[in-house]
Amino acid sequence: MSGGIYPVILSGGSGTRLWPLSRDSLPKQLLSLVGDLSLLAVTAKRVSGEHFAPPIVICNERHQSLVGEQLAAIGVRPEATIVEPVGRNTAPAIAAAAALLRTRDPLAVMLVLPSDHIIVDEPAFTRAIAAAVTAAEAGHLVTFGITPTAPETGYGYVRRGTRLAQCDEAFEIVRFVEKPDLATALEYLADGAWSWNSGMFVFPVGLLLEELGRLEPGMVASAIASVDGATVEGEVVRLAEAQFAAITPKSIDYALMEHTPHAAVVPGSFGWSDIGSWRALWEMGEKDGAGNVIVGQVVSEDTQGCYLRSNGPLIAGLGLKDLIVVATNEVVLVAAKDRAQDVRVFANRLGVAEPKDA
Amino acid sequence: MSGGIYPVILSGGSGTRLWPLSRDSLPKQLLSLVGDLSLLAVTAKRVSGEHFAPPIVICNERHQSLVGEQLAAIGVRPEATIVEPVGRNTAPAIAAAAALLRTRDPLAVMLVLPSDHIIVDEPAFTRAIAAAVTAAEAGHLVTFGITPTAPETGYGYVRRGTRLAQCDEAFEIVRFVEKPDLATALEYLADGAWSWNSGMFVFPVGLLLEELGRLEPGMVASAIASVDGATVEGEVVRLAEAQFAAITPKSIDYALMEHTPHAAVVPGSFGWSDIGSWRALWEMGEKDGAGNVIVGQVVSEDTQGCYLRSNGPLIAGLGLKDLIVVATNEVVLVAAKDRAQDVRVFANRLGVAEPKDA
Repeated sequence: MSGGIYPVILSGGSGTRLWPLSRDSLPKQLLSLVGDLSLLAVTAKRVSGEHFAPPIVICNERHQSLVGEQLAAIGVRPEATIVEPVGRNTAPAIAAAAALLRTRDPLAVMLVLPSDHIIVDEPAFTRAIAAAVTAAEAGHLVTFGITPTAPETGYGYVRRGTRLAQCDEAFEIVRFVEKPDLATALEYLADGAWSWNSGMFVFPVGLLLEELGRLEPGMVASAIASVDGATVEGEVVRLAEAQFAAITPKSIDYALMEHTPHAAVVPGSFGWSDIGSWRALWEMGEKDGAGNVIVGQVVSEDTQGCYLRSNGPLIAGLGLKDLIVVATNEVVLVAAKDRAQDVRVFANRLGVAEPKDA
Repeated sequence: MSGGIYPVILSGGSGTRLWPLSRDSLPKQLLSLVGDLSLLAVTAKRVSGEHFAPPIVICNERHQSLVGEQLAAIGVRPEATIVEPVGRNTAPAIAAAAALLRTRDPLAVMLVLPSDHIIVDEPAFTRAIAAAVTAAEAGHLVTFGITPTAPETGYGYVRRGTRLAQCDEAFEIVRFVEKPDLATALEYLADGAWSWNSGMFVFPVGLLLEELGRLEPGMVASAIASVDGATVEGEVVRLAEAQFAAITPKSIDYALMEHTPHAAVVPGSFGWSDIGSWRALWEMGEKDGAGNVIVGQVVSEDTQGCYLRSNGPLIAGLGLKDLIVVATNEVVLVAAKDRAQDVRVFANRLGVAEPKDA
């Protein structure tokens, strides 16, 4: 086979755990959370080298223009920007991208990437992509596994089995476990055969449509129909609403990966983070002598281990320890750092619900 | 003697420990910190009953119009609003008020009150005023002493001596101590003969000018000259700048009370607070079941013992303990409650210096 490798960047989510910065109109992946570029732009840039075809980006209508601007600003011109009329989770979005891509390059390989992950060790990730493409071209549907560094209970885990004959770095998957309890997560961490399911995949477009079509025939038929009936305007492809909206939301793990016999994993450590909370941004941020990460207009005194970020009013911190303070012109979040995961209660309570998008 | 009792309300200060709410353009006494009225309005209202003549208010030029509005809103029409061209601390301000008052009512008794103190037990305070007026009319310069409830190191202390013959509730003062160290403050608290020097006084206008004129002749001559040369516009009396500005700043304690043989104290507990910090506002505020005082737009979760106040953006607090959070549209203060006294470092560092006003 010799199709191009097309990055398929999923940009439909919102990220309530980074409230109040992330919100419906400006979700996490479009924010400059680390450095000057948005997470989407960093993701697109990471896969814009000579080995890759131009990306396909999937987003919703209200973000399409900003997505276009952010990509143009770094010189990336997408193969297509697929606009979802409504969010239907990852499987329908990936199916639509595959349906579109098959009409343009039937031998294409898709590199599916969430738009809001950080990868610090890019050379290692590039090597892992090469391995995953080899495994995919040998007939596998491949996920990237992240070697656990902590007994996280919020992630999905995959257990690797036999090494693939065609690729030393890839393994069959023998089990999926979604969000284990702490005792189980500790076992997995000690065991060594388990990885976090990163949400990043490599799929040959033909095999994907075939397997997903076998497991979820209605979903794939509707996704193909939404592409056939799409409104195309330059690179922007607006899926036909009636067909796409009719699909039942389902994640790609639940619709495909947990059921196909072709699932494989390429484990690795790439300095990966899904930036699941403000605490994660503190962990990866550059710290001052007292362990504080400071972003924007901030003054502080006798303050340690804090993440202090202003996108609006000046923050003045006095005698603080292990807190997160994020200030915008509308909202000031002040949270204990070990409660960072629970910030979503405010997003939910205040009506900034997380859309079930790709 | 039978002159009227004239409240003289000192409204020249700023209050850097209540930064960021208090600032040059809107100092502490003009803020609605407790309830709907400003501290100045509450102070004026407290002494607007039948026993009192209309007040004299002393402020600086940039607050004069707001002072006038706040008093008009509660139906108080001052005897005079004295505008200081520059702040010179309390002694010159009181001397100028006395000089003005003597021209209108030579037998007047002045009830000098800072504009930013809270008094919860008003009946007890009214009784103390009556005692202080009796002592003053018998030839004393009287301060109100507050019975200490804690070994405060930020206040001045007075030690009472012999009870006055003319008034059971008043005593000679035998010693002044400014800001003792903690060990000394603990002794004073145990001893029982010491009071905090409240900064509230009762002075017969003639005796005040005579004694202050003896101790600080230049100050009193200049204060009288600044009144004689004042620009009068309705109730507003703008002191002559050249004369008033020439005075060396000095507090009334340092200029008069610590040196005159006529000093007396009326001790009492009136539920008094000078609201010296955000912690004081937490202490006196109405608390929810978890010991939080909440003012303005605030949501919170698992939060206890905090003072959370928004005059701008919504505050969202998660997992907090014993913190002060005060949010305005320009500044968000987040401070450990036991560091409330040190908030002034920000006010000073950011250039909102406390003027040495009355």
